[in-house]
Amino acid sequence: MTDTLPLILLAGFAPFGGESSNPSAEAVHALDGETVAGHRIVALELPVVFGESLRALEAAIGRHAPALVLAVGQAGGRTHVSLERIAINVDDARIADNAGAQPVDVPVVADGPAAYFSTLPIKAMLLALREAGLPCEISQTAGTFVCNHVFYGLMHALRARPGTRGGFVHIPWSPAQAAARPGAPSMPVATVVEALRIALGVALTTRTDVAVGGGAEH
Amino acid sequence: MTDTLPLILLAGFAPFGGESSNPSAEAVHALDGETVAGHRIVALELPVVFGESLRALEAAIGRHAPALVLAVGQAGGRTHVSLERIAINVDDARIADNAGAQPVDVPVVADGPAAYFSTLPIKAMLLALREAGLPCEISQTAGTFVCNHVFYGLMHALRARPGTRGGFVHIPWSPAQAAARPGAPSMPVATVVEALRIALGVALTTRTDVAVGGGAEH
Amino acid sequence: MTDTLPLILLAGFAPFGGESSNPSAEAVHALDGETVAGHRIVALELPVVFGESLRALEAAIGRHAPALVLAVGQAGGRTHVSLERIAINVDDARIADNAGAQPVDVPVVADGPAAYFSTLPIKAMLLALREAGLPCEISQTAGTFVCNHVFYGLMHALRARPGTRGGFVHIPWSPAQAAARPGAPSMPVATVVEALRIALGVALTTRTDVAVGGGAEH
Amino acid sequence: MTDTLPLILLAGFAPFGGESSNPSAEAVHALDGETVAGHRIVALELPVVFGESLRALEAAIGRHAPALVLAVGQAGGRTHVSLERIAINVDDARIADNAGAQPVDVPVVADGPAAYFSTLPIKAMLLALREAGLPCEISQTAGTFVCNHVFYGLMHALRARPGTRGGFVHIPWSPAQAAARPGAPSMPVATVVEALRIALGVALTTRTDVAVGGGAEH
Repeated sequence: MTDTLPLILLAGFAPFGGESSNPSAEAVHALDGETVAGHRIVALELPVVFGESLRALEAAIGRHAPALVLAVGQAGGRTHVSLERIAINVDDARIADNAGAQPVDVPVVADGPAAYFSTLPIKAMLLALREAGLPCEISQTAGTFVCNHVFYGLMHALRARPGTRGGFVHIPWSPAQAAARPGAPSMPVATVVEALRIALGVALTTRTDVAVGGGAEH
Repeated sequence: MTDTLPLILLAGFAPFGGESSNPSAEAVHALDGETVAGHRIVALELPVVFGESLRALEAAIGRHAPALVLAVGQAGGRTHVSLERIAINVDDARIADNAGAQPVDVPVVADGPAAYFSTLPIKAMLLALREAGLPCEISQTAGTFVCNHVFYGLMHALRARPGTRGGFVHIPWSPAQAAARPGAPSMPVATVVEALRIALGVALTTRTDVAVGGGAEH
Repeated sequence: MTDTLPLILLAGFAPFGGESSNPSAEAVHALDGETVAGHRIVALELPVVFGESLRALEAAIGRHAPALVLAVGQAGGRTHVSLERIAINVDDARIADNAGAQPVDVPVVADGPAAYFSTLPIKAMLLALREAGLPCEISQTAGTFVCNHVFYGLMHALRARPGTRGGFVHIPWSPAQAAARPGAPSMPVATVVEALRIALGVALTTRTDVAVGGGAEH
Repeated sequence: MTDTLPLILLAGFAPFGGESSNPSAEAVHALDGETVAGHRIVALELPVVFGESLRALEAAIGRHAPALVLAVGQAGGRTHVSLERIAINVDDARIADNAGAQPVDVPVVADGPAAYFSTLPIKAMLLALREAGLPCEISQTAGTFVCNHVFYGLMHALRARPGTRGGFVHIPWSPAQAAARPGAPSMPVATVVEALRIALGVALTTRTDVAVGGGAEH
């Protein structure tokens, strides 16, 4: 890792909500050290803890000065890789985080704006994943738990680094997680890894996003 | 309607997406002229057209100077009355509006902020509806179609009227709409009317919202 | 009830699975004593107990000698009134019944046939409910719990009464039940009552069922 | 294929419903010629045509005299590998088959019994797949289309071959199929292949099924 390639900071999360694994961490670890479009991937595992997760991410950004930051979180119940469009300035926890905190209707950043849009070319990423035969969708909400908290805090932090783009991707349960849940959709970690590799490549080589639909009526 | 009661502007929508009815319009018309917590309801039906919908709503706000504005839209596939938390500054139409327009990734308001939060006490409304045995939830996204467009434009317009609160509620298909769709959830318009009456009463009598959870992990 | 009208035996169920109400019982009680197509409805509430439920139903059939028997059960998570096509000869309980029994892969009737089809004109009933704007579907499985147990036992018992037709209808959660469950679909008991009234009328006046599709690919 | 190992007949299906591929055919072709528990797999692709599919399967049974027959079909929308419990004696096609036929409420076998249970140890297979971390469930209905038609006809034919066991498995859409459908769950063909290999091994080495729950309330 003593090369001089520019870096991608790729963050996954620790297990939470009673799970013993988190496919987001497995996926980012699998990609650690790989090169995509002339950039080296640095993987990072974040705690599922309000505040602490964001401090760990900000420290890693300071340490690595990455060209691009992508955070990846588990969205149990979703079927597709979800490219998140927007992060909102609220913590509202339905379940406790891994440190026992359960904030309700507290801003991520006091006096921060209501929301930040992803600065990744999510429509170009969507097209590339679909062409590769990988289930992918645009999501209009990253929720109000630690994932959205990290996404919002990331985009707030990146205001000070105009050359660094950032975004968030949610992924389905792994098959092993779904095996214990009748009716639960899943995606193998190997498929997620393939999707992330393509998504990062598109993000690094696309300056202006394409105008293809990815909206929802509600 | 020549009384001097303060007004509630209650907006529903015309049918769209190939439907011949829209339960949101039926519900608001059913409540037209009713008094809730000392306020008179004025119903309004908006076209499902980008731009035009918002101009009609803004004109009605100018004409009636309401104390509260609630817009109500149909969210086919949802099961509960959804109290929307946030409107985002993007139009991204998966289907064409009723005038044939299908904008992709265009801001609702050029140079507007990324999002506006509802200024209604949505958590107090949630509690009251649940206590009444009516299925109700907080929603973290109003989509990117005409509903979100109207919601965003409403909140943008209300910046100039600090005394007027505003928000958006999505409702399920009516039973008649669901009858043609295997597996489609529904809610009778009479139930929606009851829910709106309760929700408006709470909104008008609650100054500070309560801190009860209504979040989502993703 | 001393009139001489032929009878409909309409059976609902007690609450189960931790619920404090069961809309099937509320619906059948609401219809008790009503006349449909020249027949008087006799309502009956069955315990959610393997064996006992069936003995209670068989006793009521012996007592009333009905022209038609319809059992109605709650199917939490379904969106439409479900007209069941077939009962199968197996008890396989995912949860315990109200007496604590949880049979696994035991036949309802030892040496009984694998299954019985409903003898109601379910397609004609489907058409009539749809025309009335009520969400209705054909279901290819009544499960393997007490509902299927009662349905199978009913059809087995009716072999000895060739003049009596029988069937089963599943209904969604009530709104009050769904209010406690995010994402849960529901149907008001009043809507269920309306649907049952129509369904019974069609069942009593249709000799030969119509051939309209109501199948599923899987 | 001139060895003397006993045979497994493993049948998949051609694409249908407008699809250009069917993961069931891909999976059975991938397993063609493999040995499982001392048995050789013979793969077969069936047309999605009422009647013709069954004649092709019966011919292959006559030709190969297999020890076990497993048919595998695509169940778009399901999330898990589904071990089917029962086949019912009805064709009721919501869509046309690949020859344009769309039977409604016609028996698969005139004067056949209402249903046949699978003769595979589906609960032992369920346990083994779950232990392997593969999403698997028992299904109480194989639908009323060509899959159920083949399953029913298979079990009817096997009455004359008491030494041959038979059953049916439904599988989810492939990722490539789901990529074109927002919200559609999927499972890679490689995962399906792994699941079928385990399922066949258990089926061939289990005489008496285990009594573990796999039922449904409805």
